[in-house]
Amino acid sequence: MQTDPSTTYQQLCDHVRETALLRSTLALLEWDQHTKLPTSANQYRSNQITCLSGLVHQRSVDPHKGEWIEQLSSAEDQLSGEQSATVRELKRDFDRATKLPGSLVEELARAASEGQTCWVEARKQNDFASFAPQLKKIVSLKRQQADAIGFANERYDALLDEYEPGATTEEVATVLNDLCAELVPLVSAIQESKQQPETSILKRHFPTSEQQAFGREVSAAIGFDYERGRLDVTHHPFCTELGPDDCRITTRYNESFFNSSLFGTLHEAGHGIYEQGLRSDQYGLPLGSYCSLGIHESQSRLWENLVGRSLPFWKHFFPQAQTRFSEAFGDVSLDQFYAAINAVKPSLIRVEADEATYNLHIIIRFELERAMMNEDLNVEDLPAAWNQKYRDYLGVDPPTDAHGVLQDVHWSAGLFGYFPTYSLGNLYASQLFDAAEAELGKLGKLFEQGQFEPLKVWLNENVHQPGKRFSGPELAKQITGNDLGHEALMRHLKSKYGGIYGSV
Amino acid sequence: MQTDPSTTYQQLCDHVRETALLRSTLALLEWDQHTKLPTSANQYRSNQITCLSGLVHQRSVDPHKGEWIEQLSSAEDQLSGEQSATVRELKRDFDRATKLPGSLVEELARAASEGQTCWVEARKQNDFASFAPQLKKIVSLKRQQADAIGFANERYDALLDEYEPGATTEEVATVLNDLCAELVPLVSAIQESKQQPETSILKRHFPTSEQQAFGREVSAAIGFDYERGRLDVTHHPFCTELGPDDCRITTRYNESFFNSSLFGTLHEAGHGIYEQGLRSDQYGLPLGSYCSLGIHESQSRLWENLVGRSLPFWKHFFPQAQTRFSEAFGDVSLDQFYAAINAVKPSLIRVEADEATYNLHIIIRFELERAMMNEDLNVEDLPAAWNQKYRDYLGVDPPTDAHGVLQDVHWSAGLFGYFPTYSLGNLYASQLFDAAEAELGKLGKLFEQGQFEPLKVWLNENVHQPGKRFSGPELAKQITGNDLGHEALMRHLKSKYGGIYGSV
Repeated sequence: MQTDPSTTYQQLCDHVRETALLRSTLALLEWDQHTKLPTSANQYRSNQITCLSGLVHQRSVDPHKGEWIEQLSSAEDQLSGEQSATVRELKRDFDRATKLPGSLVEELARAASEGQTCWVEARKQNDFASFAPQLKKIVSLKRQQADAIGFANERYDALLDEYEPGATTEEVATVLNDLCAELVPLVSAIQESKQQPETSILKRHFPTSEQQAFGREVSAAIGFDYERGRLDVTHHPFCTELGPDDCRITTRYNESFFNSSLFGTLHEAGHGIYEQGLRSDQYGLPLGSYCSLGIHESQSRLWENLVGRSLPFWKHFFPQAQTRFSEAFGDVSLDQFYAAINAVKPSLIRVEADEATYNLHIIIRFELERAMMNEDLNVEDLPAAWNQKYRDYLGVDPPTDAHGVLQDVHWSAGLFGYFPTYSLGNLYASQLFDAAEAELGKLGKLFEQGQFEPLKVWLNENVHQPGKRFSGPELAKQITGNDLGHEALMRHLKSKYGGIYGSV
Repeated sequence: MQTDPSTTYQQLCDHVRETALLRSTLALLEWDQHTKLPTSANQYRSNQITCLSGLVHQRSVDPHKGEWIEQLSSAEDQLSGEQSATVRELKRDFDRATKLPGSLVEELARAASEGQTCWVEARKQNDFASFAPQLKKIVSLKRQQADAIGFANERYDALLDEYEPGATTEEVATVLNDLCAELVPLVSAIQESKQQPETSILKRHFPTSEQQAFGREVSAAIGFDYERGRLDVTHHPFCTELGPDDCRITTRYNESFFNSSLFGTLHEAGHGIYEQGLRSDQYGLPLGSYCSLGIHESQSRLWENLVGRSLPFWKHFFPQAQTRFSEAFGDVSLDQFYAAINAVKPSLIRVEADEATYNLHIIIRFELERAMMNEDLNVEDLPAAWNQKYRDYLGVDPPTDAHGVLQDVHWSAGLFGYFPTYSLGNLYASQLFDAAEAELGKLGKLFEQGQFEPLKVWLNENVHQPGKRFSGPELAKQITGNDLGHEALMRHLKSKYGGIYGSV
């Protein structure tokens, strides 16, 4: 005798909610590790994390869950639209978690852990050759993973699907290709412009305590809720959530560079506003979870770049910045400041890149990792391919692998298919911003007056509240009416840099 | 066929160590709740805590554990001394956890939770009558608990045994009685002395940032290791450990009162030094766990009072305090300061009491809770009995129940048998301090020169490293050669107050 679907649905959701209690506790262990943990406590913390991860994993592959999902999937006609989407997403997670043989999961975990250790050393020694065998192993395991999961056209599809469900490699490649074709000449024209911003004003002295207060003030003003969140200090800033009303963002302070903490805080606050905008009543369930990494990144980029690097934003905030940092900004005009924070300069390092060149760093990584997965590029040939693309797209020549192919942790940690979500974030952000303006009118007028609530509420309703009801590409199309494309981002960049660098 | 005891012992220890991973994670949830949690996140945090507590409890009553313990208990001759003590203590925990019927455990948990809520309101409204029915219920459940656990002479034995194993009510009553008989006249003589310290100097202005820096400096100087610990801010200071190398102490700052944070920090640092002195290789197991609450408290009291309120300690630190708090202490002499931090004044509130009267607050609570357990005192008659004892022992008359019987959370939370461990801590501390001096020579000479390491190392070796190998009373006797007694504490108090108040 079959159980009533609504009872089964309840059992399934209760199970998943209980797993979320453990998963969010695991997130606390990790947050604390990166913000508060005494130096000597790392080893035991790893053991605690392994223990909790094990419990979470056990529950996520619990056969009961599989049975409930099976039963509900075949009774879909008796489910509401929301229930049906919930079951679909839980099935997706369950299938991904159970499709991989346990031995492969373990091998991947070990290779990623060893890979990171090996990478740290290789980067320090500028010695790609010592890292290559480990990377080869990881590439081979990721190929096996893709094969075990299955894919429509190419292996990379299966990996991309983990981070951006519903997007295909082919579509992403087309859009990034189009973007690249327009970005390369834009960046080159910017470099040749006679008007160049004076960026040294951002490298004066900015006391940490003032940066702290200002970052908190600005992030609260755009809508990050400090009764439901915190801001702490860490080495590599991140955003995490430890419950439906507990979102924690992090930053780091550099007293000799204005940008790192302020724009980092705006970026993480954008992630945080997304997490805080999710449905609390669906916490732990798909409809209360972020849609995709690309959509998540669209929210951080939107607040960091489209809002936080806009002229109207600083019309409102620059006087306050001048008061706080009177020594550094006393003799600086708004226009000088605005040009400086938007300066474009091709460079070697992704995480230090500006809004325009950032995407070129991503495109390079995407093309290389796709080629590795498709067996079109051997690990041995990676450094040369990397350097060639940096010359072609950015016009810079990595002097060492430490400043080149060894700079990012991702591949050593087994993250393939992750990089493009950064650029998807930029692309979605521009499209979503345009859609918001189409509905709310010119947002700059509001920003000038310190009004960020209308945009936040619009994002809450349109982007945050659906959770995982739709895939990233579906959600974006539903809101903007358009497929993913490079046009909105390019319009935004050209308009901004036209103002700063003259006709480019 | 029986398994080899050494294999069983390993299985048992692995099981307990894994439980410790969860227990310490639970401790992180609680630490974070009291120090960092955003205001809106409390409800979900309770759910996380309930979930982890459930997992810890499940494991602690796991029948496998019971079987291993049973098997090892009957093969004791094949165990080493350490193994045998480990099994004995694990058996004790297991028996206590499994002896109580599940229904009683649940009723106690509910009554304690409701009791605290009810108590908060009753204290706010100064309305003992509204709390009485709840307290009656708790008292009745605690009697049932004592009956279920079993006891030698009186119910209170079973409750005291939870916090101070190996101590009997009769012994504790005798010692506290003797102490009371000498303390009451001492306090009264002090009150009548013509020499009275000027305590207003401690109520000047002490900037939080300076208090923070000074507290950290002093706690590090006495031996709290900040590479294996932290100091954070909270409402009700506590010490907790989240792993073998992760001990966290907390404090609160009052800019108008020097004592609260500094002596609070020394107190918690004393607890912390104990935790940090336990054997890391036995973490989670009895030999790596604190001996008893009384011994734990002896370590906090020792550093707070016997070290931190001594003249030699301040010979070393007062010049630094004068530099940090130049406005407040610029015109204060060391003798004035020393007298002020040791002022004795009978008062209504336990947590604000000085070193001498503190024990009278405890004796009152011990006598009353013992009488309630033995059905010699009805809950209805508690306020009158309370007030009478305050008049008799301290010469003060509680104007309201909020300042009297309703001041402490303990009884509302079902904590009976807990209070005397505070005084046991003071008694053990004096005896241990004397034993340390017998071995190391006069410690004051060292403190004057800022040397605290010899005492810390002595405590590490003698008090900390044994863990739960012996009971509190056994351990103290082994170290000091004496049974628990009031003499050492009285000698210490008389000598100190003789210096400050003249012949008392």
